Amino acid sequence: MVFDEEFSEIAKSIKASEIRELLKVVQNPEIISLAGGLPSPDAFPVEVIREIVDDLMEKEGPKVLQYGSTDGVNSFRDVIVERATNKFGFSNIHRENVLILAGSQQGLYLAAKIFVNRKDIVIVEAPTYVGVLTAFQSYFPTFVDIEMDKDGMNTHLLESKLKELKKEGKKPKLIYTIPTFQNPAGVTMNLERRKHLLELAEEYNTLILEDGPYEELRYSGKDVPRIKSLDKNERVMYLGTFSKILSPGIRIAFMIAHEDIIQKAILAKQGVDLCTNTLSQYIAQEYIRRGYLDRQIPKIIKLYKEKRDTMLDSLEDYFPEGVDWTKPDGGMFLWVTLPKHVDAEKLFPKAIEHKVAYVVGSAFYPKRDHKNTMRLNFTYPSNEMIKEGIKRLASVIKEAL
Amino acid sequence: MVFDEEFSEIAKSIKASEIRELLKVVQNPEIISLAGGLPSPDAFPVEVIREIVDDLMEKEGPKVLQYGSTDGVNSFRDVIVERATNKFGFSNIHRENVLILAGSQQGLYLAAKIFVNRKDIVIVEAPTYVGVLTAFQSYFPTFVDIEMDKDGMNTHLLESKLKELKKEGKKPKLIYTIPTFQNPAGVTMNLERRKHLLELAEEYNTLILEDGPYEELRYSGKDVPRIKSLDKNERVMYLGTFSKILSPGIRIAFMIAHEDIIQKAILAKQGVDLCTNTLSQYIAQEYIRRGYLDRQIPKIIKLYKEKRDTMLDSLEDYFPEGVDWTKPDGGMFLWVTLPKHVDAEKLFPKAIEHKVAYVVGSAFYPKRDHKNTMRLNFTYPSNEMIKEGIKRLASVIKEAL
Repeated sequence: MVFDEEFSEIAKSIKASEIRELLKVVQNPEIISLAGGLPSPDAFPVEVIREIVDDLMEKEGPKVLQYGSTDGVNSFRDVIVERATNKFGFSNIHRENVLILAGSQQGLYLAAKIFVNRKDIVIVEAPTYVGVLTAFQSYFPTFVDIEMDKDGMNTHLLESKLKELKKEGKKPKLIYTIPTFQNPAGVTMNLERRKHLLELAEEYNTLILEDGPYEELRYSGKDVPRIKSLDKNERVMYLGTFSKILSPGIRIAFMIAHEDIIQKAILAKQGVDLCTNTLSQYIAQEYIRRGYLDRQIPKIIKLYKEKRDTMLDSLEDYFPEGVDWTKPDGGMFLWVTLPKHVDAEKLFPKAIEHKVAYVVGSAFYPKRDHKNTMRLNFTYPSNEMIKEGIKRLASVIKEAL
Repeated sequence: MVFDEEFSEIAKSIKASEIRELLKVVQNPEIISLAGGLPSPDAFPVEVIREIVDDLMEKEGPKVLQYGSTDGVNSFRDVIVERATNKFGFSNIHRENVLILAGSQQGLYLAAKIFVNRKDIVIVEAPTYVGVLTAFQSYFPTFVDIEMDKDGMNTHLLESKLKELKKEGKKPKLIYTIPTFQNPAGVTMNLERRKHLLELAEEYNTLILEDGPYEELRYSGKDVPRIKSLDKNERVMYLGTFSKILSPGIRIAFMIAHEDIIQKAILAKQGVDLCTNTLSQYIAQEYIRRGYLDRQIPKIIKLYKEKRDTMLDSLEDYFPEGVDWTKPDGGMFLWVTLPKHVDAEKLFPKAIEHKVAYVVGSAFYPKRDHKNTMRLNFTYPSNEMIKEGIKRLASVIKEAL
């Protein structure tokens, strides 16, 4: 490339995301993609957004189209405070604890920007969300990953790791978790581990970054309280988003955290994008205020529950012995573990030949190991596509066994 | 603060922007603010946006509310290519040269992220846009500032500086300029200097970051070609925005540059916010496609020309001898130079007492010098407010002389 020597160290270090590259292949309409991470367009309240924008333009156009302040529209921050208090069980939070974001990814990026120096330790789940890796890698941290099982991050392994690090004189800057319906694994951390995680954060004096994009999309099982709702000493930074319960295209999310952290995040955001989309903030505000959100969530749950069930049934019907998968109670993804000797990366071209796509599991590990795993999405494809896709994938896997 | 020792080096280094802090004072409705940087809400095509969103929701709701790719909506990128080719005079550009941004500030940030290592030299105009300082400071560069006069950046001073740096074995990473109706100074770089700047970039093998937020808002004088339109060797990264010709609240801007630079900027953006607001991209696309933009610009020009004239007339009428100001042919700001011994920072509390506000000029210099200067905005206040505001400011200045 012409400018190769001019680029910064960061620019030289960032590579095209593998998922992104893989997904390009998937543009072919004959391929059934279980690879994406998209909500179903059927989940979008199109008519509601139309009504809201219509009203906003009629009554408050100039305000809604103007620059906003970096922290967000105050009335919207108050709506978030109210919802977090009443629905999420967060206590003692105020407008000053809320920063409006242009999507959760921005929250991950700002957390990295305000906390991570080169070689700082950041603890993540194994596997973890790819976006946290791309966000944090800009600051050259050392990732430490903690294995999960069907009850989420194994906090006993975490405890051993924290002890070990302490002996070496090292303290992690923060622990990142998607405790509920994790992306990519589809598992949920149980209550006992959530409490244990908080105790460990206290004992080892570190922070928790809790990412809750799917919290409200539960199709079975009982609610488990958010970690932030159990948090007495403001050790938890919580990220919430409207991408899965309204629209990802309007890019609205929020961080709830200690006021001092929010203050720093605001300053960090100022340099990054000045302010979040004002129109989108008002759309999300009215979506909640007019009661549409609480009416839409059951519709989305109904839609996705059927898709999840279709995928679980199809896996049961078609997948061979020796292949294992998680049974998510909500969210968008499940996680397949193949026999040790089967490499999902090598399998991928064959799957494409059979016109089905998935994401290779190694993409979700900082060290790119666990090659015998894959992530499947069930929210975007139709029920028919899910069934046919799993059938195709089953035959690809059988060939490899 | 509780988390003081946990914060990153960057977080510790960023301070609340002075302008931001000053503007808090200005919330008092009795104060006439000439300090802001806001477009007039009268310039927003509220009804047009309502119509466009209505149509989009009726016909393309699911697409418009879904995640987009990091580079932007392809059809919108093509619309930008067409406009840049036909209206900006850019040649030989394609979709691959365009990255859609969530506002120009993001473009500044990404340029910093992909080019600037610690202590790299970044050349800016003196005074320069505050946002470029906040964006770039995250990467700890060394700013070198080049004085301007009524014809923009003095490229002869630039040449001397480049020579001097070369002798020291140093090469600037890039040269940042707002050549037309500069913020904060209100001046426009003449054609000769634009050509000279490009020659210098060639000779010293560096890049130009051309920021063009006000290009289409000319109230007098003749158009001067954008530097990018004279650029034969893709040395110029161009930033354009819809904030001043549509709405700042929808946060849409774009970068046009060499394909390799765009590729790196896309990767850098992926970690920062995944993708730009899809709904806003379609709004801006339809705004151009349906011909509204070209009909709106003359209306905005008419509105702002009157405001500029009112401010220039009022300055002539009320300001004392010994005070100088620029006569912008467009844009949103003009620049006042007080006699050397008058400190605009010290004057500020007195201005607030007199119920008028401005931005102290030193905020626009990396070294915070030039204390005898101030920036005035004429797009947001009404004509009456401008007249009364200048009258009040004149009496504050007279007291200080």
